[in-house]
Amino acid sequence: MQIAIVLFNRLTALDAIGPYEVLSRVPDAEVVFVAAQAGPLRTDNGRLGLLADAALDEVRAPEIVLVPGGPAVGSDDDSPIVAWLRAVDATTRWTTSVCTGSLLLAAAGLLNGRRATSHWLAYERLSALGATPVSERVVVDGKYMTGAGVSAGIDMGLTLAAAIAGDEVAQGIQLALEYDPRPPFGAGSPRTAPAAIVEARRAASRFTAAA
Amino acid sequence: MQIAIVLFNRLTALDAIGPYEVLSRVPDAEVVFVAAQAGPLRTDNGRLGLLADAALDEVRAPEIVLVPGGPAVGSDDDSPIVAWLRAVDATTRWTTSVCTGSLLLAAAGLLNGRRATSHWLAYERLSALGATPVSERVVVDGKYMTGAGVSAGIDMGLTLAAAIAGDEVAQGIQLALEYDPRPPFGAGSPRTAPAAIVEARRAASRFTAAA
Repeated sequence: MQIAIVLFNRLTALDAIGPYEVLSRVPDAEVVFVAAQAGPLRTDNGRLGLLADAALDEVRAPEIVLVPGGPAVGSDDDSPIVAWLRAVDATTRWTTSVCTGSLLLAAAGLLNGRRATSHWLAYERLSALGATPVSERVVVDGKYMTGAGVSAGIDMGLTLAAAIAGDEVAQGIQLALEYDPRPPFGAGSPRTAPAAIVEARRAASRFTAAA
Repeated sequence: MQIAIVLFNRLTALDAIGPYEVLSRVPDAEVVFVAAQAGPLRTDNGRLGLLADAALDEVRAPEIVLVPGGPAVGSDDDSPIVAWLRAVDATTRWTTSVCTGSLLLAAAGLLNGRRATSHWLAYERLSALGATPVSERVVVDGKYMTGAGVSAGIDMGLTLAAAIAGDEVAQGIQLALEYDPRPPFGAGSPRTAPAAIVEARRAASRFTAAA
């Protein structure tokens, strides 16, 4: 079972690596990292280099595709990825995203009229692209599974692992990753974070308002 | 403030990338990925390539050092890293680890008689190396901060971000990462996972029993 995870410059690393760490442990899964061209890419802050092992045109029929997000999603650079997502979606078993990766699925026309999620700052943008934004950690609509912001990729990865390999496999992976989260603060959602912190993030985002 | 994250072949990616995603967002932090030699490295399953931007001997006085773990920790290949950890620890503000990375700190003699944690399967090994294993998500003893298995690096990263930059900065990062975890199962700890799954993992581990 081939699982293609898309990389691009300025992606948010944890969007991709959280679900990778889960999905690469599913028996018989073969994870491949794909990008417009094979070779090194840099994450959003430039501090981490990741290697893509295959070019998009070398991976034509993955059973599962996963696209992460990043602060630059929505630029012209997206077009090869958007076209590829539209093409491979014709034969995928699951088409999935984490964070603002759902904006790429929506730009490909794959989420028209579907329930989907994204980073909490990107709901308006997701709606403008034809999807129905839902404020949930993981959203499933048909074969489309979308995760909320960044760290939600771990929850989405486990949900996907259970869907493809069963609950016991997913639970074994959760235990191996010791995924028993204990955030030191309760600030992980705009519903629970201090209002001033929520407003500061909203003001700085290019995904909200007139951005 | 320089934060050095150590890479090596067969590391577990999320051990490093979870805290990286947090710490790279701390104002004035400069994260650098270091390895025995600069260049590409492969994670535990070989499916992901990460780039180290600096060799160990190019990074001599980081204020914070973080060492991830992996299934091969404890081999002879560790020795350059262990020697480097011992050397840079002389001037660090914080010396930290995620998962079996604590075995490298302990091998360097830095955890002698200290409370520390590790992956739940590695407590015996940690004890044999002179530390006092503690089954907690994040353990602080002096300037030594250790995180539990794999995903605990996110909790440790936020705890460390709060220690160096204050609670509000850490909360803002938590919100940006939408770290409001909702694991689909409760199997993330040996205390909560089904007994058969715990035993299967224990039987397969090289860190327990006579391994």
